[in-house]
Amino acid sequence: MQIAMIQDKIVPIAGLEPVYLDRGIFFGDGVYEVVRSFDGRIFALEEHLQRFNNSLSAIEIGGVDIDRIRSRVLKSFEAAGIPNAKIYFHVTRGSELRNHLSNPNLEPIFFLTVTELEDCTEARTKGIEVSTHPDWRWKRCDIKSLNLLANVLARRDAAEKGCAEAILVDESGLITEGASSTFFEISERTLQTAALTANILPSITRQFVIEAGGNIGLKIIEKSLTPQQASDADELFIASTTQDIIPVVKFDGKLIGDGQPGKYTKLLIREFLSFTV
Amino acid sequence: MQIAMIQDKIVPIAGLEPVYLDRGIFFGDGVYEVVRSFDGRIFALEEHLQRFNNSLSAIEIGGVDIDRIRSRVLKSFEAAGIPNAKIYFHVTRGSELRNHLSNPNLEPIFFLTVTELEDCTEARTKGIEVSTHPDWRWKRCDIKSLNLLANVLARRDAAEKGCAEAILVDESGLITEGASSTFFEISERTLQTAALTANILPSITRQFVIEAGGNIGLKIIEKSLTPQQASDADELFIASTTQDIIPVVKFDGKLIGDGQPGKYTKLLIREFLSFTV
Repeated sequence: MQIAMIQDKIVPIAGLEPVYLDRGIFFGDGVYEVVRSFDGRIFALEEHLQRFNNSLSAIEIGGVDIDRIRSRVLKSFEAAGIPNAKIYFHVTRGSELRNHLSNPNLEPIFFLTVTELEDCTEARTKGIEVSTHPDWRWKRCDIKSLNLLANVLARRDAAEKGCAEAILVDESGLITEGASSTFFEISERTLQTAALTANILPSITRQFVIEAGGNIGLKIIEKSLTPQQASDADELFIASTTQDIIPVVKFDGKLIGDGQPGKYTKLLIREFLSFTV
Repeated sequence: MQIAMIQDKIVPIAGLEPVYLDRGIFFGDGVYEVVRSFDGRIFALEEHLQRFNNSLSAIEIGGVDIDRIRSRVLKSFEAAGIPNAKIYFHVTRGSELRNHLSNPNLEPIFFLTVTELEDCTEARTKGIEVSTHPDWRWKRCDIKSLNLLANVLARRDAAEKGCAEAILVDESGLITEGASSTFFEISERTLQTAALTANILPSITRQFVIEAGGNIGLKIIEKSLTPQQASDADELFIASTTQDIIPVVKFDGKLIGDGQPGKYTKLLIREFLSFTV
């Protein structure tokens, strides 16, 4: 009889809930999104749904109705009743006995959580330290997939060094992005971040930061930085959906500016917040 | 209240089984093995357990007792009573609300299945066709991790071309390995396969194939091949735990030799089988 074992317990495979044979766990064969709300309103949901649709297409998961995903997000957000919420959701290709090549008739699986956003006031006020790590990720980081072990390992390395984020450096010595954030530099009134390629997640927050940068009169350059350039910057920060803009005050042990969040970074934080009200 | 949604059903997070919040599904934060049995005997279990231990160490999952894993494998194999079985097992870092940086006190989660091995007599007798695909995998393929989306996408591409396996080609134009197999070439009585690096899984079957090659008088070279070299080969084959040796008779549409499994490949199949009795 075909069986499964969970920790020390033997069970027939036929009796397993689908999640145990989810291709998400066997292969990371799925894509995800994270959205947040500000005081009861979900921010940039349509942009996230559009990117989610792109990710589904990129890995050829068909049969997912984005209108239905939107309804599920809204319904669960309402049910949770959390004003400042983090909403995570993924779709995997489905559940079946493990096989690289899936049965074409599998039904995709949707999973979502609504939780309280963690408070990042201290990080935003004081700034954080970051450290570099080789970018071990796969070659399609433009797809927001469940294959995130390289990101996890980079974050573990950063944490061991007392840092709050890992900044990933590719084989040619250029910074791609943070393990779970976009990385930005400001020097001489110019805002710089890597251009969107197959190695960079098309971050929604990145779009809004660039817009905010234009609004406060910064010149924008989309081009990769080296760690040396980053060390010598006037200001550094990271940006992500759950934390929006967080100043970086130390890079690989080197103080950035005077070790306080930079002037333009603070202006950007204010400008970004104006988008969310 | 923090909630989850599974397909259209809303449930409290507190009531979820641990598997729903498994870091295996959120990040692919786990490692796995596949072993097989021949007529009631598991083949090369110790070698697989040693590699599993290496994988756990490489991603710093601690607190897993390999003796206990061995007992679980043996107990479940016995319980299933399948003489020619495929035994899959993984350990993930644990279950918790999604966060790149895990709680250090998480308990790792073990999951295993015992299923019937698929019959591959036809593939072994007639040979298979393979096609190349860019190697999109991460940079630590020496770790047998759950991050396998690149492998899945390559296999989907191969299947669309009517091929049974994808042969991965890195950015420098060299073949690394198959999406779920090791790739071998034989020309002029020399057996060639890529050397073990961070981009290559240290396949147990590969070790036995190399030993078998020596036994039948082939010279062994561990060095990467180009697709052109592969196309021009006398013989090609792939090797994996679940299928051992499968001849390749067409490579990117080009017939290999006379389009039949090669002479030395057939000798290797026989020699390999002698290890398993």
